[in-house]
Amino acid sequence: MLATTPSPPYYAVIFASIKSDEQSGYEKMSEDMFQLVHHQEGFLGLDTSRSDVGITVSYWKDEKAIAAWREHVEHKIARQLGRDQWYSYFTVRIAKVERDYYFSKVSGEER
Amino acid sequence: MLATTPSPPYYAVIFASIKSDEQSGYEKMSEDMFQLVHHQEGFLGLDTSRSDVGITVSYWKDEKAIAAWREHVEHKIARQLGRDQWYSYFTVRIAKVERDYYFSKVSGEER
Repeated sequence: MLATTPSPPYYAVIFASIKSDEQSGYEKMSEDMFQLVHHQEGFLGLDTSRSDVGITVSYWKDEKAIAAWREHVEHKIARQLGRDQWYSYFTVRIAKVERDYYFSKVSGEER
Repeated sequence: MLATTPSPPYYAVIFASIKSDEQSGYEKMSEDMFQLVHHQEGFLGLDTSRSDVGITVSYWKDEKAIAAWREHVEHKIARQLGRDQWYSYFTVRIAKVERDYYFSKVSGEER
């Protein structure tokens, strides 16, 4: 399912990545971070997808919440391992969501 | 490869989707739209990924460029077919990118 977020404004962190050949430990860390982020104050949800390129977009109440997650000690370790091992290339973008809309075929709903 | 964009501010359109069982014509339209969007004024690039969830993030110079693409007649047809056939659920978020950074293991570059 896709993330549902409160009405804008809120923030999105857009993380796009290409993996390296060193994936040892990645799956475990990925699951750990997934659990952990859901307990962060100001976390609103995330969408994630992976084919050749991986994209994870996490949604946040404000910049303060993003900064706190960035400083989380376990997340810092994960990010360092990401740079040292798991990713050959990545981009991060911090963006303020101004408008959003949803479509659901089941409900016919569009907002 | 991932999109490289000019320095912020610029805009991101975050499109997350879950497909329906009706995929007839999707691949052709997807390729057509991919070609077409690259010729739009103010288009800066895109990142795309698909597993259970598909995420495409396109980057734009400003809101005017996003509005022009939204009004493009072929894109309008594609979006209508998306709602009628290809997607069971999707979300669209328009966000202003305030900060970004890149990491490349090959070059050791980080900006």
